[in-house]
Amino acid sequence: MTHEHTIPAAEGHTADHGSGMPATRLEHDCIGQLEVPATAYWGIHTLRAVGNFTVSGMHDAQHTQLIRAYATVKRACAQANEELGIITADKAHHIVTACLEIEGGALSDQFPIDPLQGGAGTSTNMNMNEVIANRALELAGRPRGDYAALHPNDDVNASQSTNDTYPAACHLAIINEIHPLIIACQRLARSFHDLADRHIHDVTIGRTQLQDAVPMTFGQEFHAFASFLKSDWQALEALIPRLCQVNLGATAIGTGICADLRFRNAAVGHLAVDTGLPMTAAPDPIAAVTDTSMFLETAAALKTLAMHLKKAADDLRLLNSGPRAGFDELDVPARQAGSSIMPGKINPVIPECVDQCCFMVFGMDTTVTWAANEGQLQLNAFEPVIIHSLLEGMTLMINAMDMFRMRCVEGITVHIAVGRDHALRSPSISASLNARIGYEHSMAIAQAAVESGRTVREVAGERTDLPAATLDELLDPITLSRRLGQTCRERPTKPEARQAASRTAN
Amino acid sequence: MTHEHTIPAAEGHTADHGSGMPATRLEHDCIGQLEVPATAYWGIHTLRAVGNFTVSGMHDAQHTQLIRAYATVKRACAQANEELGIITADKAHHIVTACLEIEGGALSDQFPIDPLQGGAGTSTNMNMNEVIANRALELAGRPRGDYAALHPNDDVNASQSTNDTYPAACHLAIINEIHPLIIACQRLARSFHDLADRHIHDVTIGRTQLQDAVPMTFGQEFHAFASFLKSDWQALEALIPRLCQVNLGATAIGTGICADLRFRNAAVGHLAVDTGLPMTAAPDPIAAVTDTSMFLETAAALKTLAMHLKKAADDLRLLNSGPRAGFDELDVPARQAGSSIMPGKINPVIPECVDQCCFMVFGMDTTVTWAANEGQLQLNAFEPVIIHSLLEGMTLMINAMDMFRMRCVEGITVHIAVGRDHALRSPSISASLNARIGYEHSMAIAQAAVESGRTVREVAGERTDLPAATLDELLDPITLSRRLGQTCRERPTKPEARQAASRTAN
Amino acid sequence: MTHEHTIPAAEGHTADHGSGMPATRLEHDCIGQLEVPATAYWGIHTLRAVGNFTVSGMHDAQHTQLIRAYATVKRACAQANEELGIITADKAHHIVTACLEIEGGALSDQFPIDPLQGGAGTSTNMNMNEVIANRALELAGRPRGDYAALHPNDDVNASQSTNDTYPAACHLAIINEIHPLIIACQRLARSFHDLADRHIHDVTIGRTQLQDAVPMTFGQEFHAFASFLKSDWQALEALIPRLCQVNLGATAIGTGICADLRFRNAAVGHLAVDTGLPMTAAPDPIAAVTDTSMFLETAAALKTLAMHLKKAADDLRLLNSGPRAGFDELDVPARQAGSSIMPGKINPVIPECVDQCCFMVFGMDTTVTWAANEGQLQLNAFEPVIIHSLLEGMTLMINAMDMFRMRCVEGITVHIAVGRDHALRSPSISASLNARIGYEHSMAIAQAAVESGRTVREVAGERTDLPAATLDELLDPITLSRRLGQTCRERPTKPEARQAASRTAN
Amino acid sequence: MTHEHTIPAAEGHTADHGSGMPATRLEHDCIGQLEVPATAYWGIHTLRAVGNFTVSGMHDAQHTQLIRAYATVKRACAQANEELGIITADKAHHIVTACLEIEGGALSDQFPIDPLQGGAGTSTNMNMNEVIANRALELAGRPRGDYAALHPNDDVNASQSTNDTYPAACHLAIINEIHPLIIACQRLARSFHDLADRHIHDVTIGRTQLQDAVPMTFGQEFHAFASFLKSDWQALEALIPRLCQVNLGATAIGTGICADLRFRNAAVGHLAVDTGLPMTAAPDPIAAVTDTSMFLETAAALKTLAMHLKKAADDLRLLNSGPRAGFDELDVPARQAGSSIMPGKINPVIPECVDQCCFMVFGMDTTVTWAANEGQLQLNAFEPVIIHSLLEGMTLMINAMDMFRMRCVEGITVHIAVGRDHALRSPSISASLNARIGYEHSMAIAQAAVESGRTVREVAGERTDLPAATLDELLDPITLSRRLGQTCRERPTKPEARQAASRTAN
Repeated sequence: MTHEHTIPAAEGHTADHGSGMPATRLEHDCIGQLEVPATAYWGIHTLRAVGNFTVSGMHDAQHTQLIRAYATVKRACAQANEELGIITADKAHHIVTACLEIEGGALSDQFPIDPLQGGAGTSTNMNMNEVIANRALELAGRPRGDYAALHPNDDVNASQSTNDTYPAACHLAIINEIHPLIIACQRLARSFHDLADRHIHDVTIGRTQLQDAVPMTFGQEFHAFASFLKSDWQALEALIPRLCQVNLGATAIGTGICADLRFRNAAVGHLAVDTGLPMTAAPDPIAAVTDTSMFLETAAALKTLAMHLKKAADDLRLLNSGPRAGFDELDVPARQAGSSIMPGKINPVIPECVDQCCFMVFGMDTTVTWAANEGQLQLNAFEPVIIHSLLEGMTLMINAMDMFRMRCVEGITVHIAVGRDHALRSPSISASLNARIGYEHSMAIAQAAVESGRTVREVAGERTDLPAATLDELLDPITLSRRLGQTCRERPTKPEARQAASRTAN
Repeated sequence: MTHEHTIPAAEGHTADHGSGMPATRLEHDCIGQLEVPATAYWGIHTLRAVGNFTVSGMHDAQHTQLIRAYATVKRACAQANEELGIITADKAHHIVTACLEIEGGALSDQFPIDPLQGGAGTSTNMNMNEVIANRALELAGRPRGDYAALHPNDDVNASQSTNDTYPAACHLAIINEIHPLIIACQRLARSFHDLADRHIHDVTIGRTQLQDAVPMTFGQEFHAFASFLKSDWQALEALIPRLCQVNLGATAIGTGICADLRFRNAAVGHLAVDTGLPMTAAPDPIAAVTDTSMFLETAAALKTLAMHLKKAADDLRLLNSGPRAGFDELDVPARQAGSSIMPGKINPVIPECVDQCCFMVFGMDTTVTWAANEGQLQLNAFEPVIIHSLLEGMTLMINAMDMFRMRCVEGITVHIAVGRDHALRSPSISASLNARIGYEHSMAIAQAAVESGRTVREVAGERTDLPAATLDELLDPITLSRRLGQTCRERPTKPEARQAASRTAN
Repeated sequence: MTHEHTIPAAEGHTADHGSGMPATRLEHDCIGQLEVPATAYWGIHTLRAVGNFTVSGMHDAQHTQLIRAYATVKRACAQANEELGIITADKAHHIVTACLEIEGGALSDQFPIDPLQGGAGTSTNMNMNEVIANRALELAGRPRGDYAALHPNDDVNASQSTNDTYPAACHLAIINEIHPLIIACQRLARSFHDLADRHIHDVTIGRTQLQDAVPMTFGQEFHAFASFLKSDWQALEALIPRLCQVNLGATAIGTGICADLRFRNAAVGHLAVDTGLPMTAAPDPIAAVTDTSMFLETAAALKTLAMHLKKAADDLRLLNSGPRAGFDELDVPARQAGSSIMPGKINPVIPECVDQCCFMVFGMDTTVTWAANEGQLQLNAFEPVIIHSLLEGMTLMINAMDMFRMRCVEGITVHIAVGRDHALRSPSISASLNARIGYEHSMAIAQAAVESGRTVREVAGERTDLPAATLDELLDPITLSRRLGQTCRERPTKPEARQAASRTAN
Repeated sequence: MTHEHTIPAAEGHTADHGSGMPATRLEHDCIGQLEVPATAYWGIHTLRAVGNFTVSGMHDAQHTQLIRAYATVKRACAQANEELGIITADKAHHIVTACLEIEGGALSDQFPIDPLQGGAGTSTNMNMNEVIANRALELAGRPRGDYAALHPNDDVNASQSTNDTYPAACHLAIINEIHPLIIACQRLARSFHDLADRHIHDVTIGRTQLQDAVPMTFGQEFHAFASFLKSDWQALEALIPRLCQVNLGATAIGTGICADLRFRNAAVGHLAVDTGLPMTAAPDPIAAVTDTSMFLETAAALKTLAMHLKKAADDLRLLNSGPRAGFDELDVPARQAGSSIMPGKINPVIPECVDQCCFMVFGMDTTVTWAANEGQLQLNAFEPVIIHSLLEGMTLMINAMDMFRMRCVEGITVHIAVGRDHALRSPSISASLNARIGYEHSMAIAQAAVESGRTVREVAGERTDLPAATLDELLDPITLSRRLGQTCRERPTKPEARQAASRTAN
């Protein structure tokens, strides 16, 4: 990324040559006055912020979930203000309309501030207040900037502060992004289930500490990846009720200054109705202003998801190792030439890309941990970098899972014969004899098998008195792998998939 | 820490000069033979591990929760083995007795292996198997090492693997340590509540972004710290049901090799009865062998707790800054001379120590994240460093909270007059006028107050038409601080404390 | 960020309606054939990679330093290949010309692959090979895709692998970005120096552990921030010689397969001449392929820089606290209204933004640490996420320092009278009496001063026999602050600035 | 670790029943009076600190490097104080003698304070001052506690503060620990070199992205591990000159209050003579008080070392995978039985233990990063947790390398035949044909080889016109692996080892 900056939204608005209309309008704040492009919906607060924060090269507009969620919060607050008689029905109507438009994706180019802004989100809040105010003025047939008629602070922001609305919008944005994240988890889990179903009877070797251990089926192995993802989406779902706790009406520091005491319940109630979510008011409004627990917990849930994705990606890369001097138990699909120098080499590039997304999420967790911990006294000023990092991390995980599913998992080819051969030749299979001949005798057989290059079955035939049929049964890899394996075949959804379970691939 | 090593448990056992008894007994494993001190309950596996792992200078014995929990798991397994006829009632009786002794704290010097051992916990498991076996032999009137009579693997470890029993013991150890951790949270929360109650009417200034904002009470400020801790102990409690999922009977890789199919339910059932906990079997035994989610979630809960402690410690250090050129709103108790050179200087050493414990927990989270993510295929070999780090982190948090409570929070003195003065002089108090005169007019008053060195009340008296009584009411810091403040006084427990709420300190 | 994807560079090239020219050309690789837009300089390898990696929403093109550096590396390799007779002078001429164009900024829209690509950088290398080949073909008057005439692999990539050229390009990109980073450090340091010079005689209180300690000058305080930055740019400069170690000629795994043995020296030599940098060949080519130390060290240097920026930002935020209930020793410039609800409130938004950039860099270090540690056997496949993270971190630090300097440090106003008052009233100033009356007697004076609300000077006048003049001298804050302070005034550059040193602000 | 505390050093000193001597002596500080055990060399400051800090269960005494280094610093300061006439020659003599005793290991049970102490190291400094003072009094024939004769603050601590001596002692302790760390690096590197020398001609397959790539020798592979370590000890050595910068004479905040202006040079000079190290005074004493860069850089160097150890351990674990269904290219030595259930299974427990030590060091880096970043204004209060973490990390790395070398690397057995077979069968070896037949034709040969299960040599014999001798030469794995391989045989030390280079193992 280059380090030159542009102020994108400010451009293209100033030129209005030839029309009679002035190219700018004058706005003021507690510092002074500035010319704002006449066509801009945003105002002086946004303009200053765009000029102040020039670090990431990104814009708030890129976090659509945050912009839409903030408009939803503003709408609920306008409804509450109307209900309590704090703003007129007319003003409320236009504010609500403007919010609905933004929630629908309109005016998405009007949020040009750097997401890594200082100021605890005040700039994004004022950007939102200004855009809503000017769009509402427009809807009311009035010129932009006519704040005497409808004011960004006194009307749009009535009964509110950045410190209660911004975290509420962040919570709502996370909740909204959890939905596609869960879908992506479930889809990837289904792909692993389908793969598992196709290989439910195909035996391979389980390895512990990278050493040959005892038999299992490929189906069990892939099923486990799906089980991990199930625990992840359950963990994400479990965050929602607590994310639904918001602190509207608490205003600046939780005491509710500037807000009618009834506003808290009214605003939370409207937000619940508008979103269909079980929104509640945080029980300790003072604590809630500064508490960043939910952001830390969201980061932790993403980190656990990343761990599970990394586990699957890494295991597939190991099992795909080869084609000749590796484990060679499966092929991930060939997606591109693997080398600029070694002809025909194919690499597991999709799992490698998944891994890298996981490393980004681990970094995200560090960033969020720092920002969440640096709050002082009655506010944590660093929520902008927190929500930026979380939303980026969530998007990355969604994209990584979709990519993983479509370009890797769905196309995996299992080397059934290799797996079976590995299972039969493992010396650790001698564990199966423990109950009959004891751990120490089994150990001698396993060691002899390794030294002589034979199978445990062969050596056991010589060194024990057990009948051949008993040995065959005790050492049958299918039987060994399926002792607790019934869970593998159990799937909550898509029963038609089960019929495919006896099919085998390659 | 020095980097010389000793093999502590191996010493002192070999000398038995003068008695007729030999000083050692000979044991063997798959590698060869070794002389084991005759008095040692542990055997060759432990001896090799003590010689192999020489990195931390610590011993498993220092993690008493883990040792006791492992004995509990072994007891439940012995009961299940007896129930299913896998070991005799006689053997089971002696094994159970040995386990109960270890759970009660006996033989605590018999676990000398480095907790940072390689091998996925096998060394600790074999140490446990050996100690139980030899103590059981002793109870049966037989010599140590008489493994033909009762075998560490075939009897004590029957139907088990390290890979199912070790994580089960880790889960149980964490659950057992969560209890004192919650107690420590609750006690510290109560101290903050008591402090809050004493200052429920004492106004001070709230600060956002370190800038003077609007009034609140000291009571609200301290109450928030208690609220944080409440969310922490609830989060810790919420871990327990999932920590109660164990994978007994899954053995080496989750397929249950070497275990009777009925063993899983039997062992989990006995463990539930023996512990009084709602133990359940993990739904996907293959996934459960390699899943380290619960360790990551435990680390995350500890990290959030540390964040809250750091928040309280840092805020107290800020509020304690001075005595003259700082915020000076409270004194933490003087615990020791603060400087070797500046006479009479007192520093907030207890909150500083709390902070450092939090930094250790942040490091613990990193270590656990690494170890949890480096599992390969059917096992994560790094659970020893995980449980070591988690137990150290939990102990550190318990100790830090006890220290924080007893040597700091309980002795805090609030500077009531300073807080009130700060509240009255804040220019941001002008927010209270927004609803009457608008944000922009309020802004002008605030700016004039700052420039002229006067209070908002004084300037507002000149620059608005509002009657003096109205201004007095609007700008009264007590009223302003108490708008949503009723939550502050609500306490679930110890109602007698509320009667003290009108008392003030200093 | 949204999670829809586009394949940007592939668009707009396919439409060539109305011309006789076909809209696409057919290319093939080891997997099959694909239609490539006829106007694209990139080819099938790029097209597959764009389709494969859909996670970050970014493009390689955004890392201009990497693109330009890679072209520089390709140019040196082409020169070496020509010198050794591996490619013809004609081919070399066109390849070199194409590289120079890319180094100059041309064709910057031809690098559309996701920077978080799997494949260890092979996709970026092949993208580069294809663009150079097709531009060289164009320069030679041949159609794109005429690889029989000039081949991306056999000619552009001759004697090379991704595994030697990609890290070389990464090293070079980092070196190139270190230059503006050092400039930004030096400019910010100069701003702190200028501020220090203006306040070289202005006394304030030094605080240790947030408690009033002994006097210093504002000049000393600000000078220290400049000293930190000096150590940072020296650390960054110290990285360059080792970053100049590249592994060209080592090809796939360090053995130099497919490369003439003379190529290594030739290519490194050309690169040195082309860049003016002291490039050298890595001493152990096998180790160098997999070693990620330099990336880790670069991340560490950025982390230390971030620590120093955070230190300055945090201290300024503390000193700026107030305006009335804080330290109030300086004002950072007012950049924007601080609150949507509290009129006239001004917050230190620029330092807060700096802090957030630092948190991003801490996260970057985590990501790089993970990726650097996950290499296996003869390659680390994760260099793409490493270089992406490092370049983002470097850009962020440059931007943060420029912003910090221009919008904060240059406009700081010091409250000289407040600082002096704080210095005079500190009880710890009694340390100055230790040598005359002993630590214990000094302690009693300090304690009496605190208890009685007087200064140490006042109490010492009563409780010691020291003459008033002696006390005045011993307790003079200017004298106390300037004992070792001469370093503060020493500045290596811009001597004219020293003349301004006696000026004071505010 | 349990969470009960004891105050170890305070015990055992109070009992002196039967003698006429009182069991305690009375000491006082700015807070009040306490009974100190009569036999204790430490005094009231230590006693308070032991009672205050009860979190880690450890004692300063366990960090022998820190205790000894602090005594060295105190000795140099006493020498400087004598030289400048600040303390008498008599006092200096006894102080110096006491310091030398402590440096030699005496009185090592007199440092009972928790290393995670609050207070920026003041407690350790006062503990040191008290022990030195009381031992010096004893040497002078006076009773302990007779501080009128020789005072911990006025004499032992003369011209000093915690804030200059504690970091100096930390720097010196790190330097002293770097020495054995470098030795451990060099010894481990030599082991890898010896292993490499034994296998300098033994071909194996290089793998990139876990896929079969092109040939190399085992010698090259192991040599790379040694090269990594060489870069590590060079990086550690490079820290020393900057660690030799100390800030003696800067006292409390860098202004040198309470210290003669000549003290700085005198003390640094004595320290240089006493240690034989090139000690220098930090150029900006104000900046140096708060700067934690060197701690961060030390942590970074340890993290890079850990990365290299993890790389070697992980690669060895991969190459050791098997015995049948893995890479199977070498055996790490069998150190203990690997499983409680799978008889005869041997796991790579030593590399696994090394990995875990690396995870601890990654956590250490996080802890140090946090603590280093949380300094405020004129001091970082958190140096105790920093030096504790660094010393623990250094010890762990020393122990891990010694263990790795003695119990793993020295006993590795290479499977020469397996490596050769892997090399011959790799399809990527076709890269060697690129220069003769082009990348695309080579690709077809590689693909045909994979599909038909033959070697590239076999297919190339059919599908190219190249003479058999040419093909044999081009595809000879020894030739291919040794192109740049001469570096592998180059070793700076122990030339006799080279004679062993032609030997092969197993």
